Amino acid sequence: MKITRPTLIIDEVKCRANIEVMAQKANNSNTELIPHFKTHQSKEIGEWFKDYGVSKITVSSVKMAEYFAEAGWNDIYIAFPCNVLEVESINRLADKISLTLLFSNVVAIELLSDQLTSKVNARIEIDTGSDRSGFKNNNFEGIDSAINLINESELINLIGFYSHAGQSYKARNAKEINAVFDDMKSQLLVLNKKYELPISCGDTPCCSVVTHFDEFESIHPGNFAFYDVMQAQIGSCRFDQIGIALATPVVDVNHVTNEIVVHGGGVHLSKDEMIESKEVSYGKIVKFNKEGWGDPLEGCHVKSLSQEHGVVKATVEVCNSVKVGDILGILPVHSCMTADCMGYYYDLSGNIMSHLKSSY
Amino acid sequence: MKITRPTLIIDEVKCRANIEVMAQKANNSNTELIPHFKTHQSKEIGEWFKDYGVSKITVSSVKMAEYFAEAGWNDIYIAFPCNVLEVESINRLADKISLTLLFSNVVAIELLSDQLTSKVNARIEIDTGSDRSGFKNNNFEGIDSAINLINESELINLIGFYSHAGQSYKARNAKEINAVFDDMKSQLLVLNKKYELPISCGDTPCCSVVTHFDEFESIHPGNFAFYDVMQAQIGSCRFDQIGIALATPVVDVNHVTNEIVVHGGGVHLSKDEMIESKEVSYGKIVKFNKEGWGDPLEGCHVKSLSQEHGVVKATVEVCNSVKVGDILGILPVHSCMTADCMGYYYDLSGNIMSHLKSSY
Repeated sequence: MKITRPTLIIDEVKCRANIEVMAQKANNSNTELIPHFKTHQSKEIGEWFKDYGVSKITVSSVKMAEYFAEAGWNDIYIAFPCNVLEVESINRLADKISLTLLFSNVVAIELLSDQLTSKVNARIEIDTGSDRSGFKNNNFEGIDSAINLINESELINLIGFYSHAGQSYKARNAKEINAVFDDMKSQLLVLNKKYELPISCGDTPCCSVVTHFDEFESIHPGNFAFYDVMQAQIGSCRFDQIGIALATPVVDVNHVTNEIVVHGGGVHLSKDEMIESKEVSYGKIVKFNKEGWGDPLEGCHVKSLSQEHGVVKATVEVCNSVKVGDILGILPVHSCMTADCMGYYYDLSGNIMSHLKSSY
Repeated sequence: MKITRPTLIIDEVKCRANIEVMAQKANNSNTELIPHFKTHQSKEIGEWFKDYGVSKITVSSVKMAEYFAEAGWNDIYIAFPCNVLEVESINRLADKISLTLLFSNVVAIELLSDQLTSKVNARIEIDTGSDRSGFKNNNFEGIDSAINLINESELINLIGFYSHAGQSYKARNAKEINAVFDDMKSQLLVLNKKYELPISCGDTPCCSVVTHFDEFESIHPGNFAFYDVMQAQIGSCRFDQIGIALATPVVDVNHVTNEIVVHGGGVHLSKDEMIESKEVSYGKIVKFNKEGWGDPLEGCHVKSLSQEHGVVKATVEVCNSVKVGDILGILPVHSCMTADCMGYYYDLSGNIMSHLKSSY
């Protein structure tokens, strides 16, 4: 494949290995892996998961549920606070497939139950520390109200509690990730015992590092299929497990500043950033080879992004080895966002794979 | 129009007023407005500019040039360091339309001139302080080499110098913006006199605040058509000149923390951020009304974004006035990036307008 423009490359072997590890681990705990498809948003990549026993999926919007329902998935969980304005689409979907919604407050339950025409499953969202949405685990008054409202509705079937422990993204090693997981688990187990309802969780750091999920009915990670530089920094993965890289044409090399300008900007990578050695980074640099790409180049990172430009801070050696017209690879800080920006993928053999963004 | 999902709304009246002001100002200076279409990337919105005398346009990639060439524009300037890997596309385009390329180094000129089959125009990029790409204005050796290489090529016609004074984005008022402009102008005038070649520039802060461009052959701003919260902070515009807003469904309201969760995340707004009153902000909050939307709500901003969630920090009053199922508007920090994320627009009458992203 001849690359001339910013192009998102996927290494199927690495991604399948990531999926297999997670599926095996869930299986060992007698827990169901219901992977989050918001990371890849691709009907072709979605098919890979079937080879590892996956039959139910998680998404983050009604639109994404519609896309994957059309691709043949018939058991879909929308792990985003129920958007009651989309009740018509929800009814259409629930009429065709097994649909599970997430409720983070009583108002949405009240509004939705008035307008539902088809049966849906429901999970109640518990905020175990991400401070984004959901009931606190000790808000029994709120949880009781939610359960009562759901039970009053003939069309909503409560199937459990769900928590996305987004606080795990602040962890930086396995010990800290395990501490987040243990705290989340103990919070959810209180509810599991009190209400006799299953519990589920979903963040990639916990699902990657923790080895046993026996108390959980299901796990819903997404990012693990691709991983990225942020997940490597957190401690969820090694660099050689990262399954996507943005190929970018080199358009300028500055031997005074040791900076390389590539065609690969915020519209390609997204502006998600991280801090490494006190410097802002938008990604690590790799070189492509016959097998895919190599390890990140020591001392190199994307230091700034504009709409179409990426500026790479490089070492003298790397600068001397790169010239205008070459291609450099960038391992993204946040692969879900990069995939969403790009809207399609090429595998290492040059086959194109679609993304929800390229389907409308 | 019934909004149920994150939807990008454009106020045509505000955008046309922004375009008219810029066109009038360029006209007063006998300078040509060659607007940058990377902001809207829309063939329909592109048509509006023709009503203000625009016949040439600026873009930031060969792909964007192809899109607008197909839409009928026949004089296009790619204001991005020439990507020699795209020579085949460049030749195809240059065969059909008047194409101008930007050269930021001699290597690209050498490589391209070997493979060119059609005539192109060229500008030489001067780095007047943005520290991204281009020749420093006192790098006469480099500039001389570039000019000689261009003059040796039968197919490349040198038409001037170009500088994007991206350093103006660090300014915070008209005085600071004018200082950036004056410095850029004096740097470019050295070259203008030495080489007897026209000069051009393009950043929106300078083009918005400065009143006279008599020394410049052309100006190439893009963002000014929409403006955004960042431009308001810099001092380029007023809030009531911002021409796009992201409509987002409210999915949770937390009266303990005074936070509102909306369906509108990094995949909709982009992760471009700014600091205001020492807090990170991803946008200002507005309410929609019959005429469009009102002024930003005091004391409210988007404090965090995940892939699909936006968390709005609000006042008690605003929190009490908003409920699950409502729609809130977000004025973006960076409108070009938000438009690129969304991939299409609706005007206030509900007509859809396309974007390059939705065309492939």
